[in-house]
Amino acid sequence: MVVANPILLPELRVMLAEGDAAGLREVAAELHPATVAEFSEGLDDRELWQMLDAVPVERQAEIFPYYPMPRQVELVMAADRQHLGPLIEWMAADNRDDLLRELDPDFVEEILPLVAKAERHDIRMLLSCPEDSAGGLMTTEYASLPADITAGEAVTRLRSQAPDSESIYYIYVLDADRKLLGFVSLRDLILARPTALVSDIMQRDVIRVRLDEPREEVVQKLARFDFIAIPVVDDRDRLVGIITHDDVLDAVRQDATDDAQRIAAVSPLGESYLDAAIVSMTWKRGVWLTILFGTAAVTAMVLARSPISHPWLVAFIPLVIASGGNSGNQSATLVITALSTGDCKLSDWPRILKREFALGLLLGALLAVPGYLLGLVYAPSPIDALVIPFTILSVVILGTLVGSGLPLLFRSLGLDPALMSNPFVSSIVDIVGIVLYTAIAVLVLE
Amino acid sequence: MVVANPILLPELRVMLAEGDAAGLREVAAELHPATVAEFSEGLDDRELWQMLDAVPVERQAEIFPYYPMPRQVELVMAADRQHLGPLIEWMAADNRDDLLRELDPDFVEEILPLVAKAERHDIRMLLSCPEDSAGGLMTTEYASLPADITAGEAVTRLRSQAPDSESIYYIYVLDADRKLLGFVSLRDLILARPTALVSDIMQRDVIRVRLDEPREEVVQKLARFDFIAIPVVDDRDRLVGIITHDDVLDAVRQDATDDAQRIAAVSPLGESYLDAAIVSMTWKRGVWLTILFGTAAVTAMVLARSPISHPWLVAFIPLVIASGGNSGNQSATLVITALSTGDCKLSDWPRILKREFALGLLLGALLAVPGYLLGLVYAPSPIDALVIPFTILSVVILGTLVGSGLPLLFRSLGLDPALMSNPFVSSIVDIVGIVLYTAIAVLVLE
Repeated sequence: MVVANPILLPELRVMLAEGDAAGLREVAAELHPATVAEFSEGLDDRELWQMLDAVPVERQAEIFPYYPMPRQVELVMAADRQHLGPLIEWMAADNRDDLLRELDPDFVEEILPLVAKAERHDIRMLLSCPEDSAGGLMTTEYASLPADITAGEAVTRLRSQAPDSESIYYIYVLDADRKLLGFVSLRDLILARPTALVSDIMQRDVIRVRLDEPREEVVQKLARFDFIAIPVVDDRDRLVGIITHDDVLDAVRQDATDDAQRIAAVSPLGESYLDAAIVSMTWKRGVWLTILFGTAAVTAMVLARSPISHPWLVAFIPLVIASGGNSGNQSATLVITALSTGDCKLSDWPRILKREFALGLLLGALLAVPGYLLGLVYAPSPIDALVIPFTILSVVILGTLVGSGLPLLFRSLGLDPALMSNPFVSSIVDIVGIVLYTAIAVLVLE
Repeated sequence: MVVANPILLPELRVMLAEGDAAGLREVAAELHPATVAEFSEGLDDRELWQMLDAVPVERQAEIFPYYPMPRQVELVMAADRQHLGPLIEWMAADNRDDLLRELDPDFVEEILPLVAKAERHDIRMLLSCPEDSAGGLMTTEYASLPADITAGEAVTRLRSQAPDSESIYYIYVLDADRKLLGFVSLRDLILARPTALVSDIMQRDVIRVRLDEPREEVVQKLARFDFIAIPVVDDRDRLVGIITHDDVLDAVRQDATDDAQRIAAVSPLGESYLDAAIVSMTWKRGVWLTILFGTAAVTAMVLARSPISHPWLVAFIPLVIASGGNSGNQSATLVITALSTGDCKLSDWPRILKREFALGLLLGALLAVPGYLLGLVYAPSPIDALVIPFTILSVVILGTLVGSGLPLLFRSLGLDPALMSNPFVSSIVDIVGIVLYTAIAVLVLE
């Protein structure tokens, strides 16, 4: 995502060669951490650590998460152990969690003793959450207050919490057991009379997510309510963390790319297209192409046994199966995106299939007309030409039903509907389409 | 997105029938506006206005944007004119802009005189920005301060700006010409000594977007820097608005769905799958299916002239064209998503095509092996069977080059690369694939 910026690189290299600590400090301390990461990404690992060493570890921990993940891993592996402990301690809990998940678990166990005990507890808790749940997105650094203090006191207390909180704009009000009682925004606190009690200002109807709630639902809730952050509670309604808007945005962008890749029968790359190694890309595409080759081989075997031999019928083979495949792709994509945005639910399946059947009928009829006209050109007689529109109508209906049905079936099995990729839908429609074509041809011609 | 919740609906209807204004006020005033919209969506237009009338117009304006856009339009058309002026005046500028863009321009001109003059200026300015630019996403309601006041004074001034600002967490520091000098977060102001000058606390390196910057770049900037909001400036660097995180999140989710639909050859629905009328859906799918039918007709015409007549060669037609289509779909989707997330740029085209050629070679070779084995089963001789692996290798390379090349070509023409839908890539690969198959068969067999 972050593209190495070549403009500052030579200047950085000169500073590094001259040991110009003041210059390095200025670059690394003054700019936005994301900009520093962008500028310095082109350095080699040793140079990059030399630059980071010009600033305090707090600042290093702000810059570090902005490098692309494969680079972060590389840098960690290249680092001295005495660098790692403080850096990991200072990193924001959610960024740290993302990094540690990419490292070898044995290596993580080796470096954890370098981290303060309190942080170690947080690290293990976050690592234990499944990555695609609310727990996998959250950070443990939030601002909280008791209910029985005044707005003025609250602002004073926030000053001391600010350095350790990812966001102090939403503050959660907890009881002695850390149960979530309510929430106030910093805006509300600033607007309130300083003597007003937090319990009087706070909103009690707090929208929250459970620790094990699927990532998709977290995204839908945060997006619907336009929150900066959403609180995460455990099964006893105690606050365990928050999920912030920036992590949700990153998750949505990543999920959208992963989904699009799955729909096109590519195992998600998980990294930038140009960074992905040819070997891993060959694997991520080859495995699906091989599966699809298997279904296409079935089509060939079916066709080898089919009595279709009139050259004019042969000429229409790609057209009839493409019509089914195309309408199937449309249905599959519409259903997959609607399921993932929350526009429809699994329980809507009767409505979805009914709609898709109606659409298959309409779209099939629409394509049957030019199909018949084209058939007239090549078929020996107008009666024979009827094979084409009848087949098109049936394969288009087949396509809409298979295309919408398979993602729903996958969702009902608890699998990702996007695994029902478009090429897979097409290849199933191909096989059945050939059977339908043969059957209709035999019926009409004999 | 917002699903009508049936639980509270009967209770709401009872309150409406009994004219229970206090009860209605409690529902509409106490819950989160998104929740109120969700609960009340099932009411008819008249009932819904009756409920909204139980709360002041400020609150109405908060609830209103949470209805799905088609419902908002319906409600506006059903409203008394005296309702509309104040509602439109109180709505957040960006939500209002979204709504007004959906209405008939003549109708907008009719209702604008009902709105205060200052707001009218803002409305016209926002409406004049293209929808897919920074201007189309922004709101004009931001918090700003001069540089020469103290942090303490700044907080006092913010109290008066808060009601008119979409976000008071990021505050922009402007000179007398509204030029953007710097920015402070509310967090910085709270943490600073009350006597410190804003000009000493503020960050001067403000990341900003231009009014005409494409939506895609705005998303990339806000996501990279993890901002709550990003300032929008005109060509003289004067602040004209801000774009907030929630609107970017909505834009990303909408764009991802639109892209996925375009990739599958569906004109973006622009509304929820289950809400879309069958007629409009038939049109949005039918237009693409008809275009694809046209290219498939070319395949049929090419095949009708092809000398391929041995039944075993006919049996392999769907398999060879599917191999090319599948690899083409993978390449097209990878390039389209990489372009839209900013992972690669148009200028990377030589690298992209080189990679895709290499991948085509590897993947083609991978599929050629089972292709030859299957060919041996049906072909009259092992030499004849060579037609299959040679064709597979060439159509897979063809697929990767066409699949990656067409989106790049579209981007270079200033068009949306996602218009190069997967079915379209497949259908082009089909035509050329049949030509290649015929040529290779003639070469090998004769």
